[in-house]
Amino acid sequence: MSSITEPVPGRTRGRMTRDARRAQLLELATELMIERGVDGFSTNELARRAGISNPLLFHYFPTRGDIVLEVVSATIEELVEQVRPNPELSPIDQLTEGLTRYVTYVERTRNGYLSLVRGAAAADADLRAVVDSSRTRIAGYFADSLAAAGIEVDAALSLLVRGAVAFVEEIALHWVESPQLGREDLVDLLRQALLRALPFSPEQLEALTS
Amino acid sequence: MSSITEPVPGRTRGRMTRDARRAQLLELATELMIERGVDGFSTNELARRAGISNPLLFHYFPTRGDIVLEVVSATIEELVEQVRPNPELSPIDQLTEGLTRYVTYVERTRNGYLSLVRGAAAADADLRAVVDSSRTRIAGYFADSLAAAGIEVDAALSLLVRGAVAFVEEIALHWVESPQLGREDLVDLLRQALLRALPFSPEQLEALTS
Repeated sequence: MSSITEPVPGRTRGRMTRDARRAQLLELATELMIERGVDGFSTNELARRAGISNPLLFHYFPTRGDIVLEVVSATIEELVEQVRPNPELSPIDQLTEGLTRYVTYVERTRNGYLSLVRGAAAADADLRAVVDSSRTRIAGYFADSLAAAGIEVDAALSLLVRGAVAFVEEIALHWVESPQLGREDLVDLLRQALLRALPFSPEQLEALTS
Repeated sequence: MSSITEPVPGRTRGRMTRDARRAQLLELATELMIERGVDGFSTNELARRAGISNPLLFHYFPTRGDIVLEVVSATIEELVEQVRPNPELSPIDQLTEGLTRYVTYVERTRNGYLSLVRGAAAADADLRAVVDSSRTRIAGYFADSLAAAGIEVDAALSLLVRGAVAFVEEIALHWVESPQLGREDLVDLLRQALLRALPFSPEQLEALTS
């Protein structure tokens, strides 16, 4: 989530460029929010961990909300990037790969993702818009894959695709809290449920595999 | 959502019992939050509409958060009550009735429901817990219907049921913002998608209709 190509410097008090300092603060803020949740994140603790004063922190990020918005946006951007489909695969394989990457990402970031996505809504309308727009973009990837396979995405199918994103998100978030199935079994469960839920004809299912 | 059996008195300044006044304030607060959203709701405006002073308002509800929590809880309680299944119907008919009532409720309360459910998360962890517990209860109704039809609700089916609730909610909220399908078509779409998504055998589907 850092825009610099150099490794982020450690927690030293030394001089840093403005970009490096911002990147370091965002890394530390991400760690903190993953540990404590968006609600539990405090700017005092962030300044302490970065070894800088509160006024200096507010020089980089005027409000706590600015930091939260940047961290949540970057995390969600990373997730959306994970599930961006590879156009060289068939739509079915895009779906399998997207689900695998989504579930792997959620598992890897565990409480962090949960806390960021659920907690994002906690803060303000800007954050809710970020989360909502990520769902819209993921639904868009899905709809694009269908359209590329020659399947007309009408109003009904468009609603089902949008619902499918919420379905996967809700299940992944519950699964990560209490993983009674293995990751591959979960991906399989999701893939089969989605392919059954969407009203594809046998010819359309055929088109989706090629 | 009022606990009194008398009609709620109008916006008079006259003396009211404590319960009647609280009920009136909650009715007005619900109207206001439906108009403006949870974020746009102000206690000043509520006191003005009720024709009482701010200190008197805070005598009934010590904080703005108390009012929001009561309004959102009552609204969501009403919704959960709407979809409580009638055990005299077959599971399939329970599903159809539950979906019809849910969609009708969301349509009737339109921006209100949207604003309350999405905005609920805006305020604090208590509100998120209320929304989350309503999803758990609705998923529980669904799982109970399946169990009553002799279908074993294992870990995988339990995840699918939970996802199904999010699926319906997401679709209903999008539909109400841009209703390109009629209400009955939507209910049909949802019912068919759910019945297909859940991995029922032909025998189980048979059991669900009786």
